[in-house]
Amino acid sequence: MKDYLAPLQDIRFVMRHLADMPSVMKLPGFEESGQDTVDAILDEAAKFAGGVLSPLNRVGDVHGARYDNGKVTTPPGWQAAYRQFNEGGWGALSVDGAHGGMGLPRVVSAAVNEMWNSANLAFALCPMLTSSAIEALILRGSAALQARYIPPLLSGQWSGTMNLTEPQAGSDLAAIRTRADKQADGSYKITGQKIYITYGEHDLAENIIHMVLARTPDAPPGVKGISLFLVPKRLVNADGSLGEHNDVRAISIEHKLGIHASPTCTMAFGEAGGAVGYLVGEENRGLEIMFIMMNAARFAVGVEGLALAERAYQAARDYALERVQGATLGGGRGSIIGHPDVRRMLMLMKSQVEAMRALAYVVAMAMDHGERAPDPARRVVQRGFGDLMIPVVKGWCTETAVEIASLAIQVYGGMGYVEETGVAQLLRDARITSIYEGTTAIQANDLVGRKLLRDRGAALRSVLCAMQGTVAALVLYEGEDMAAIRMNLAHAAEALAEAEEFLVAAHAGDAAGVYAGSVPFLKLLGITAGGWQMARAALASAEQLRTQTGPQDFHRAKILTARFYAEHILPQAQAMAHSIRAGGHSVMALSEKDFEASGG
Amino acid sequence: MKDYLAPLQDIRFVMRHLADMPSVMKLPGFEESGQDTVDAILDEAAKFAGGVLSPLNRVGDVHGARYDNGKVTTPPGWQAAYRQFNEGGWGALSVDGAHGGMGLPRVVSAAVNEMWNSANLAFALCPMLTSSAIEALILRGSAALQARYIPPLLSGQWSGTMNLTEPQAGSDLAAIRTRADKQADGSYKITGQKIYITYGEHDLAENIIHMVLARTPDAPPGVKGISLFLVPKRLVNADGSLGEHNDVRAISIEHKLGIHASPTCTMAFGEAGGAVGYLVGEENRGLEIMFIMMNAARFAVGVEGLALAERAYQAARDYALERVQGATLGGGRGSIIGHPDVRRMLMLMKSQVEAMRALAYVVAMAMDHGERAPDPARRVVQRGFGDLMIPVVKGWCTETAVEIASLAIQVYGGMGYVEETGVAQLLRDARITSIYEGTTAIQANDLVGRKLLRDRGAALRSVLCAMQGTVAALVLYEGEDMAAIRMNLAHAAEALAEAEEFLVAAHAGDAAGVYAGSVPFLKLLGITAGGWQMARAALASAEQLRTQTGPQDFHRAKILTARFYAEHILPQAQAMAHSIRAGGHSVMALSEKDFEASGG
Repeated sequence: MKDYLAPLQDIRFVMRHLADMPSVMKLPGFEESGQDTVDAILDEAAKFAGGVLSPLNRVGDVHGARYDNGKVTTPPGWQAAYRQFNEGGWGALSVDGAHGGMGLPRVVSAAVNEMWNSANLAFALCPMLTSSAIEALILRGSAALQARYIPPLLSGQWSGTMNLTEPQAGSDLAAIRTRADKQADGSYKITGQKIYITYGEHDLAENIIHMVLARTPDAPPGVKGISLFLVPKRLVNADGSLGEHNDVRAISIEHKLGIHASPTCTMAFGEAGGAVGYLVGEENRGLEIMFIMMNAARFAVGVEGLALAERAYQAARDYALERVQGATLGGGRGSIIGHPDVRRMLMLMKSQVEAMRALAYVVAMAMDHGERAPDPARRVVQRGFGDLMIPVVKGWCTETAVEIASLAIQVYGGMGYVEETGVAQLLRDARITSIYEGTTAIQANDLVGRKLLRDRGAALRSVLCAMQGTVAALVLYEGEDMAAIRMNLAHAAEALAEAEEFLVAAHAGDAAGVYAGSVPFLKLLGITAGGWQMARAALASAEQLRTQTGPQDFHRAKILTARFYAEHILPQAQAMAHSIRAGGHSVMALSEKDFEASGG
Repeated sequence: MKDYLAPLQDIRFVMRHLADMPSVMKLPGFEESGQDTVDAILDEAAKFAGGVLSPLNRVGDVHGARYDNGKVTTPPGWQAAYRQFNEGGWGALSVDGAHGGMGLPRVVSAAVNEMWNSANLAFALCPMLTSSAIEALILRGSAALQARYIPPLLSGQWSGTMNLTEPQAGSDLAAIRTRADKQADGSYKITGQKIYITYGEHDLAENIIHMVLARTPDAPPGVKGISLFLVPKRLVNADGSLGEHNDVRAISIEHKLGIHASPTCTMAFGEAGGAVGYLVGEENRGLEIMFIMMNAARFAVGVEGLALAERAYQAARDYALERVQGATLGGGRGSIIGHPDVRRMLMLMKSQVEAMRALAYVVAMAMDHGERAPDPARRVVQRGFGDLMIPVVKGWCTETAVEIASLAIQVYGGMGYVEETGVAQLLRDARITSIYEGTTAIQANDLVGRKLLRDRGAALRSVLCAMQGTVAALVLYEGEDMAAIRMNLAHAAEALAEAEEFLVAAHAGDAAGVYAGSVPFLKLLGITAGGWQMARAALASAEQLRTQTGPQDFHRAKILTARFYAEHILPQAQAMAHSIRAGGHSVMALSEKDFEASGG
């Protein structure tokens, strides 16, 4: 497998033509950056991802993170890469200028994060978690906490973690038990055990800043009694220098299917009396902060899915171009890219990767507008769109990534099953993305329960209107390609509308039936929204062809790729809508006893 | 993960009600066995699979097969299990009585093989390959070869392998180069290298009998110049005792994504002048033998898919019943099987496993009738059905197995990503099944090119007629369940018929377009045939409920499961048919250059 090569042409196309970068760059706070800065950043990121992070990806997989008596060692070469990452200032990319960051739009950080994740997901998780810790501090940290902790996190000198779940809790944070006792000096003593803590311990940074959910003794039960605490691995002196070790340590790391180099730790707090923690925000309001941060984190994991799918596509494409085997339909010998089913698999990969990228960047743009647009009405609309689509970006891109990584193995055939080739790692790595930061079912419950039913479908209906606008615009272009795109998008949008109406109407009477259809609905919305973005891309490319601007081959290929997506992916929308509408009953029809009995 | 528990109730239901065991047991050669023997065999196999093979599955994964200087060591406990397997006489199950076997129907061996594969795929591959070697000898081996080699292969004292591909050849056997030079004594000297040889070297058996494809010096090019040779690891003396080592050795084993305990060897023949080989059948007719054997091998791999899916379903079901997490829709705390999306995933697994089992056993029954039915016309029809469906059983069951193994991880959530749980292994193991013995694309080319187009759809149309018969029978039963099954099956069959007509008509003008739709067509036929079998199952269960015979809960659950399949799987048929009919052009629309250019 070759090293990663950032797909800059498509990244720039999506930014410019679909995510409307010119309007993003005019938002308050972004005016000073300028397109030249953004272009330079993309070029540099591409170089760093392909040249430094990508060559370490397999090393990381083979070597893995290693645990010994509380210490975790990262694979050879990782410390140097982490230093280079920090020297490049990459950790500060999207952090606001007021807090010392570069203050670039989310569209840009999405593109850069796509590159890190394509090159080396296990590495990229460390700065990703650090960003989340910074965001929590910016959101609700006191001025004192911000001043002491943000600068070294921003420089990467220290890294950050999120400590949410516990063995008995799983995805259900209401069940967490870690305890926080207030001390006379205003700090807290933290006691408890946390599991699945990504980069909970490692040797890349001088200090690790844990963001920990815990309960004070008098907290109300459930999610309304959860507070957020900052718990440093090493205590920090008044002058910012490192003090003694806090009462927190990693007691083991998981042996996982993939992302071997990313240490997944079980953390023990307070084995020797209590770890020193500092309250972030107010008591009992920890989950609110988490919810805001989760949006960003879920979007980021969606981008991980896109990124792994891109890498898998590159691997399969390169192999299919080079591997000579068997007779082509013409009768001669050629590389396997001439075989129709190999081509079909590559098109499944390419078209869905491009659709995911388009949707993810457009959602990032909406988040930028939602935060910064001067017009409050525009902010509300854009935020509504972003909130609706974030669980879709997370759920759909990660589920699709697993399928695409599996397709890459299929293109390689027997070679793909051999670990040395490197594609098997992509499937192993991808498989976590539809689980962590909330499984696909949790994303789907958020989509249906919070985003769809609360406004009775209003946000989704404005998406449907926008899709209709795209369908209408396609009428203006002649030719079979645009007609096929238009027809299939129109049918998919219709299926989506029917499913939406059904869910909104059925909710009162049949909650189980509605939630039985929530994951199919998430996928239905994902593939339809992806097809919508591909249709927008086809329109933009048609315009570039008409005016003979830009790389003509690229634009011709974009239209053909959009047509493939329309003909091979969008038809699934009807099937999903049918299952959502007709199939709720049969999901829950068996009793638990029926399952128990079926072994004998 | 608990040990495997054979789903004997469903296995017996499918045998009796769908695969018509009574008629199979009346076929010439099977009359003596009797249902009691079959029942006893199923019970014993279930015990051995669950009690001996299943506990070794994770040991095998963790330890793996180990290579050192030409020798391969199997994991701890495997030698003892192999001995027990042979003591049980399991290797002789489906071999004809005339050759010393038990001569049981393929339906029975399919069920028993399902159990071995569910319990421990990596182990089961060794006897599976031995069976193939025996079959080759029975098909075309001389009386002398049969007498010398079959008995010790049958007892498992020796094991067998298939040596087909080479590094430059991949799936294209026309390209193989291994050379066979005839010697004065009638034997041949074999020289060349073979890759991906399952159990090519190991420490379970005293001798290994390699079946090797090679070319004589004057052989015509391509597949018409390939001969089959028997090449023992150790030469066999005239009295049957082991002689000196032959000039063949394993030079490495692969480090694979899964089936770690099954050694995948690179074999070197003739490093010291030539390995002694014996011609099986006639010169230049090796591929014919391979093709006959391939049918059985492909069916067997389809059963591997079914088996891994069953195991994954059991794991997910057990976990979902036990794991308490989160609030159920009713508001209380309960196990996660109460969550609608967990239930949906379990039903996806359960319903597809049952559909795959039904189709696989019905195809096995057709193979039994095709070989032994006294009426020649019946033999032709049954063989036609079997030949048509074997690539479907292989392709559809293995592709579905990968999805179902992935779903099992999803049900486990974060726990599923941790290797100790054991479900991740199922995905890793399953991933090879849609690659070896011919990738899904190769199955689909066989299905479309040989089975569909050669008879211009005749065999498929008789399947469609049978489906219509099932649809008609469903009309006789009242109630929403049967109506939903009927309607969805009728629609799927219609979509299948449309796709078939399209492919047959389009073939003359657009071969690339036809083969671009071959894998979707294979899946379309698979899910529709699976739905047809589930509908037949629902009919049988309805009859059992009406007459109040058999386990009533089981039959009620069977009907509800068939309805779930009808509402959640069958609707995909329309989407696939649409893509096959409309989407051929866009598969091949990009030029190879468009793929090359897309990195920049």
